[in-house]
Amino acid sequence: MSIIPISASACYKVEIAGGLLSSLGQRAAQVVSGRVAFVVTDDVVADFCLHRAVSSLEDAGFRVFTHIIPHGEQSKAGPNYLELLNLLAESRLTRSDLLVALGGGVVGDLAGFTAATYLRGIPYIQIPTTLLAMVDSSVGGKTAINLPMGKNLAGAFYPPKYVLCDPEILSTLPENVFRDGCAEVIKYAVLGSPKLFCVLMHRPIVEQLPEVIETCITMKRNYVQEDEFDRGARQFLNLGHTLGHGVELASNYTLSHGQAVAVGMAMVSRAAVSLGFCTAETCRNIEELLTRFGLPTRTEIPHCDLLQAALGDKKRQGDKLTLVVPKEIGHCILHRIGVEELPRWIALGG
Amino acid sequence: MSIIPISASACYKVEIAGGLLSSLGQRAAQVVSGRVAFVVTDDVVADFCLHRAVSSLEDAGFRVFTHIIPHGEQSKAGPNYLELLNLLAESRLTRSDLLVALGGGVVGDLAGFTAATYLRGIPYIQIPTTLLAMVDSSVGGKTAINLPMGKNLAGAFYPPKYVLCDPEILSTLPENVFRDGCAEVIKYAVLGSPKLFCVLMHRPIVEQLPEVIETCITMKRNYVQEDEFDRGARQFLNLGHTLGHGVELASNYTLSHGQAVAVGMAMVSRAAVSLGFCTAETCRNIEELLTRFGLPTRTEIPHCDLLQAALGDKKRQGDKLTLVVPKEIGHCILHRIGVEELPRWIALGG
Repeated sequence: MSIIPISASACYKVEIAGGLLSSLGQRAAQVVSGRVAFVVTDDVVADFCLHRAVSSLEDAGFRVFTHIIPHGEQSKAGPNYLELLNLLAESRLTRSDLLVALGGGVVGDLAGFTAATYLRGIPYIQIPTTLLAMVDSSVGGKTAINLPMGKNLAGAFYPPKYVLCDPEILSTLPENVFRDGCAEVIKYAVLGSPKLFCVLMHRPIVEQLPEVIETCITMKRNYVQEDEFDRGARQFLNLGHTLGHGVELASNYTLSHGQAVAVGMAMVSRAAVSLGFCTAETCRNIEELLTRFGLPTRTEIPHCDLLQAALGDKKRQGDKLTLVVPKEIGHCILHRIGVEELPRWIALGG
Repeated sequence: MSIIPISASACYKVEIAGGLLSSLGQRAAQVVSGRVAFVVTDDVVADFCLHRAVSSLEDAGFRVFTHIIPHGEQSKAGPNYLELLNLLAESRLTRSDLLVALGGGVVGDLAGFTAATYLRGIPYIQIPTTLLAMVDSSVGGKTAINLPMGKNLAGAFYPPKYVLCDPEILSTLPENVFRDGCAEVIKYAVLGSPKLFCVLMHRPIVEQLPEVIETCITMKRNYVQEDEFDRGARQFLNLGHTLGHGVELASNYTLSHGQAVAVGMAMVSRAAVSLGFCTAETCRNIEELLTRFGLPTRTEIPHCDLLQAALGDKKRQGDKLTLVVPKEIGHCILHRIGVEELPRWIALGG
């Protein structure tokens, strides 16, 4: 088993091991004093691992409530958040009890934000069930819901008490969901690891999942520890996301998060070539790796729609925003631009 | 002008001076770098001070959006919170811009919670316009909305950047709203200041408002600095609130917060006499002072309804809860009881 300790405003650990889900109850009993657990999951995940999670909690002495939301980005919305708050209140959960987020990023973000705000904060555990959630959203304490104007526009920084990563769960994932996570894995490689980039290019990812997950989480951990509240270094994790969020929103979520990030990363790379930030070869390598993983690198969405959607980015600072721009594989820079420059980046990346 | 600095997870100051509202723009320009301000207020407050607030902000170079909610506790609800989030997003407020909460506790809590969670947190200023908000809710960083199951059941600890207290605003308050704040002022006296208690008993409060407000805020500041996140000393501020929240909820908010706290304080005092925590004279003094201020000390609500409502208290820890019990004027204790003991406290206090 790999254990990655995280020391930010709160300390917690990520544990990675096949079959770990069966130890959930035992782990949960170590992080809270109450013995009521409320498990949030989605209808797809519920079929293949809710029973195991609930049994493990019950065996450890927890009284367990469950709530199943429809899968998909549409569930990460305000009304679902209010519904979940009401369910916790009706179950009379207290600050000593536990919320468990069992699912991908949608479940993790929604349940995490609910945990952050119910009674002004109760303990919660993240159990990511997708590659994307394992390497990204379950670590670092960012929680959120979407607003009609854009993704993750409301939320909180609220670290979990514990993150349980069981790579065996991934074998049950549909191919497209798995690919989605690969976009974020590639992001880490472009950001800071030529070695990971090379490994991804030349060896099947499924043969080395626990190691890849550990590498990505460790990289994310380092950014989070340096800059938990997203004022500096953590912004690097936004590679592909400024345009990606725009693509995701403008596609009305018909493109998945991973697909949108792949397009965003490719667009910013192409623009970076035109503007002299990186070589055409670097950009070609990025596009090639994305394509090998079955991810898109271009979009048909009109540039004006993309621009409108991207301007809603919550990381915009007044009339400035910060793009993450590749210099070479494993080395990116933060590049602050005026919003009036964004159309040019979109046009050059398009 | 009195200035009370507060050093908790964030540092900010409370300024108290008649006429200070006209300096809002100038103060705002010192705490944020953006020049967009979004002012939230209610329909009653809007009539007598929104214009002054907006003018002052515009004079300081801010582009100003306003949003007026209906006055009253019913506005502090989930759907209003989501609406406000959407309005901020539609106004494209960024993390450099400013939210201003101009109003009583309802506006302050709702707008504060929205500021805490929009883009995972943007700066905000509290301008309390009621005595209750000045001495209580605007200081300390607790923000919240109500859920159908009870008051303040969702929220965040999120300190403002600045608190502007202009006691001149209070002269425009209806008598019953003013009285409401007096209940919290009396709470501070019972909690920790025999001197304040004596002053309230013997001199008209309106003759000494700035001093009373400063005394109360300073007491609250000391609790908040010792225990920002409500795990220890800050629980003293809950005097009258465990039963008071129950009274408020069970009355379906026909009793105001101050009235409910007055009843809660009187009930816990009467029970404290029966159980030997304080003398009958202490209890009589508390009841007398509440009555002098036109506040109720008893309720007709059936005990079983009160119990149900009080059990939803968010400070319940599993099957335990902490009552704040008067020993004498100026000295209370935290008394932890099992939930099964609560009916007895209600019966004895009834």
